[in-house]
Amino acid sequence: MLEQFNKAFESRIRLQIMSVLAANESYDFSSLKDLLEVTDGNLASHLKALEKEEYISVNKSFIGRKPNTRYEATQRGLEAFKKHLESLEKLIKQQK
Amino acid sequence: MLEQFNKAFESRIRLQIMSVLAANESYDFSSLKDLLEVTDGNLASHLKALEKEEYISVNKSFIGRKPNTRYEATQRGLEAFKKHLESLEKLIKQQK
Repeated sequence: MLEQFNKAFESRIRLQIMSVLAANESYDFSSLKDLLEVTDGNLASHLKALEKEEYISVNKSFIGRKPNTRYEATQRGLEAFKKHLESLEKLIKQQK
Repeated sequence: MLEQFNKAFESRIRLQIMSVLAANESYDFSSLKDLLEVTDGNLASHLKALEKEEYISVNKSFIGRKPNTRYEATQRGLEAFKKHLESLEKLIKQQK
């Protein structure tokens, strides 16, 4: 059972973050928050963990005087996420 | 994004426990431990959490003088696990 499950993705919120960032060039914090229906703190802690693993990168800029923080999946993140999904898929197939 | 992800299954080890118990009538502690390659304490904590949710049931008996603890998935556990896998499958399909 040595599939490549990745502890970094062991949460619904992280799975959804990576899935959104895999499907989009980048995504800003508040749009992610609304989409995933999570609190600021909860989202921030998951994003920080993914950033620490270098699975996502952060781009801080200003729109006018308003700070805008955008997130992107890194190549490393997309590859790790793909492997994780493949392991999940294998486990799901075993149930059929 | 209101799939039915279930926090109780948010770990590789719990996914594998449920997958083994879904495929077998019952499984004893030490065989689970070897199969999943986890420590006693780690496995025990995940099993306790699943038991608390009534997703698995525990059967303590003796073989000769040796204690034998067997685990089984409950109907409730199998249904919740099935929904969780369906949510994962939906998320995976979105990536394709």
